[in-house]
Amino acid sequence: MEVLMGVGKGGLKAGNKPDILVILLPHPCTASFLFTTNHFKSASVIYSERVLRERDTIRALVINSGNANCGVGEEGIIHAEMMARETAKHLDIDYREVLVFSTGIIGKPLPIESVLEGIASACRILEPLDLKRASEVISTTDRFPKYAFVKKGALEVFGFAKGAGMIHPQMATMLSFIFTNAEVEGDVLRKLHREINERTFNSISVDGCTSTNDSFGIISLGFMKEDLENLRQSLEEVSLSLAKKIVEDGEGATRIIKVVVKNASISLKAKTIAEKIATSNLVKTAIFGRDPNWGRIVASAGSTPFPIDQFKLRVYIGSHLVYDGKPHPKAVESAKKYLEENREIEITLDLREGKESWTYYTSDLTYDYIKINAEYTT
Amino acid sequence: MEVLMGVGKGGLKAGNKPDILVILLPHPCTASFLFTTNHFKSASVIYSERVLRERDTIRALVINSGNANCGVGEEGIIHAEMMARETAKHLDIDYREVLVFSTGIIGKPLPIESVLEGIASACRILEPLDLKRASEVISTTDRFPKYAFVKKGALEVFGFAKGAGMIHPQMATMLSFIFTNAEVEGDVLRKLHREINERTFNSISVDGCTSTNDSFGIISLGFMKEDLENLRQSLEEVSLSLAKKIVEDGEGATRIIKVVVKNASISLKAKTIAEKIATSNLVKTAIFGRDPNWGRIVASAGSTPFPIDQFKLRVYIGSHLVYDGKPHPKAVESAKKYLEENREIEITLDLREGKESWTYYTSDLTYDYIKINAEYTT
Repeated sequence: MEVLMGVGKGGLKAGNKPDILVILLPHPCTASFLFTTNHFKSASVIYSERVLRERDTIRALVINSGNANCGVGEEGIIHAEMMARETAKHLDIDYREVLVFSTGIIGKPLPIESVLEGIASACRILEPLDLKRASEVISTTDRFPKYAFVKKGALEVFGFAKGAGMIHPQMATMLSFIFTNAEVEGDVLRKLHREINERTFNSISVDGCTSTNDSFGIISLGFMKEDLENLRQSLEEVSLSLAKKIVEDGEGATRIIKVVVKNASISLKAKTIAEKIATSNLVKTAIFGRDPNWGRIVASAGSTPFPIDQFKLRVYIGSHLVYDGKPHPKAVESAKKYLEENREIEITLDLREGKESWTYYTSDLTYDYIKINAEYTT
Repeated sequence: MEVLMGVGKGGLKAGNKPDILVILLPHPCTASFLFTTNHFKSASVIYSERVLRERDTIRALVINSGNANCGVGEEGIIHAEMMARETAKHLDIDYREVLVFSTGIIGKPLPIESVLEGIASACRILEPLDLKRASEVISTTDRFPKYAFVKKGALEVFGFAKGAGMIHPQMATMLSFIFTNAEVEGDVLRKLHREINERTFNSISVDGCTSTNDSFGIISLGFMKEDLENLRQSLEEVSLSLAKKIVEDGEGATRIIKVVVKNASISLKAKTIAEKIATSNLVKTAIFGRDPNWGRIVASAGSTPFPIDQFKLRVYIGSHLVYDGKPHPKAVESAKKYLEENREIEITLDLREGKESWTYYTSDLTYDYIKINAEYTT
C-alpha cells in the first residue's frame, strides 16, 4: 500500500529524456492544492482546479515537463482532459480522480499524440515512488533534483519539487508535491496548507516573476492518526526544505540570501519589507559583487507603503551591524569578508517597533542569470 | 532677468570634477516639487520638504552630486541647512528660500567643509543657465547629459535631469528641474505637476528600485500669461522627453522598451499591467536576447491583482500580432527580426474590454547592468 510512480517519454524534452510522470495513490486520498494566482494560467491548472471543485479526494497525478500547456487557446484544456483520461484508462480508475500538471515552455501546443503514448508507457511499469527520480523527470532548467523527507516516530512526510526560474510564487513554486502517511480531514488540511505555504513557497523569489503553472499539493495517505501540531511542523519542515532548494538552484545563483525582518509591528509589514529587499535587483547584484552595500538594502526597505524610522532601524549583514541610524564603516569591512567567505548570506533588518518577524529567501543576480534568460529562446 | 547658474567643486566626484550646482532665480518664483515616496529618504529631501511646508515660492537651488546625503543620521539635515545658508550668504538672499538636493552614494557623511567651499566658489561666477552643462554637473553614472526645451510662440519650457540606475520613481527620477516663463498659481501648478508626473517620470523604470533622493520640480518664472492646456502640453512634452532620456541611459541598456496597455476598463489597471511587464526581469532579458518571448509578456500581465481574459487579449511586438488567444508562430519569426533591427521596441497588449490606456518605458536587462551594479562598490 504505497505510492507508485511510472515514467514515460512524451517527446517534449530534448535528447529524448523522460518527461512524463504518473503517480498512483494507494486509494482515493484527501488532497489540498494551491495553484498560481496568475490570471494567465496554464490550461492544465484550469483543468485541475475544475476537478478539485467537484471533489477533495484524488487517486492519481499525471505530470509533463518541457511544455507548460499554456497560452495555446481552449485546445489546452481539451489536451489536459485527454491526459487525465489516458492515465485513468491504463490505471483502471475514474478519470475525474486524476489531476494534470504541466511545466516548461509557454505558447506551444502539446504534441498530444506522443504525450498520450508517453502516458501509456509510463502506466505500463509502476514502481515505488522514488523522490529523486520523480524530481528529475519533471525538471526543466533545474541543475539538481529537489526532494525532502522527515520521519518522526511513525509519522512520515516526503515530497519532491522542481523550479529554478520564473520563481516568485504567489502560492507555490512551479511544481511541488508533498505526501504524508497521516490522516487529516480536507478542511483541516487546506487550512494547514495555506499557513505553511505562506511561510515557505510564498516566501521565496528567484526573479520576482510569477509562473503560469505554479502548483503545490499536499496529499494525505491516511494510514495513521497524528497530533496536528507535530504534523504541521513536519509538513513545514519539508516545504521549507524544498523551497530553499529552489532558491539554491536559482538561475545563475552563486549565493542564497536569507532576508530576516524582525521586530515589526505586524507580520504583513515584516513580510512586505523582506520581499521588497529580496526582489531588489540592486541588492541582488551587490551580493553577487560581494559588496556589503547596506544603502541599497535600506533604500529597498523604505520603498514599500509601510513607514520605517530610518534613525531607529538596525541592519546586520551576517552578524555585522552595518547601520543603526548611522553608518559603521568598520563593520562594513568585516561584512565584506563575510560575503566573500559564505555561500548562505543572512541580511537582518531590526525595525525595533514590535514583535513580528518574517523570513524570505532569494538568490543573487548574476551574469549567468542574464545568459540563461537572454539565450533561452522561444 | 533670467535663470543663472554657478558651478563649483566640492571634492565629491573622482578626478576633481565639478559636483556643485547653484541655480539663482530672477525673483521669488512659484514652485511645485515632488519628492521620493521612499521612507528611507535623503536628509536633503527631508530638509527641502520642510522648507516647502512653510512657503511655495523659492529663490535658489543648491545641488551636489557624488553623495546622496542619505543614511548618515541627523547630521545630514544639519549639513543640508548649512548648504542652504552658505548659498544664501553668497547670493545675498534669505536661506529659507533655498532648496537643497543631493545625489550619489548612500551612507557616507558629506565632507561638509569642502562642500561649503565648492558652494562659495560656485556663487562667485554666475552665468546664464546652460541646460547641458547643468545636467553634466549633477550627473553620476549617467552616460550623457539630459535636457529638453520647447518654445511655442512666447511660451518657453525647459529643463534638465540626471539618472540612470535605481530608477523606478514613485514620483520622479533622481533629479529633474523644469522651468517655464509662464505665470501659474501655486495650487494650479501643483495639480498640473502631479498629473504630468504620473504619465512621465512615474511611468519609467530601469531596475524597479526607488531612489532615496528622487526630486522633480517645476518652477514658474512668471513672465507671461499662458493658456493652461497649452502649458500642460508643453510641460508634459519636456517631462516625457527627460524621462525617456533616463530610460535610454538605463544602466547597461541596449534597447528602450515602450509598453502600451490599451483598451482596459480603468486606467489604473492599464498602468499596473504595463508596469508589471516593464519591470519583469524575464521580459527584459528576453528583449536583450532579441527573443519575441510573448509567453513571458503574458505571464507578467497575468500576475497583477487585475483579472485578464487570456482567450481574448492580443499581444503585439512592434506591429506583429504574436498572440490573440492562441499563438502565431509565423508572426514570432518576423517579430524576431523586428527586435534585432530596432533600438526602440514597442510591446502592445490589447485587453479589448474598455477604453483606457497607459504607456510605460523601460530598458532591457543586460550583462552590463550586472557589471555596473556588481562592481560598483560602497
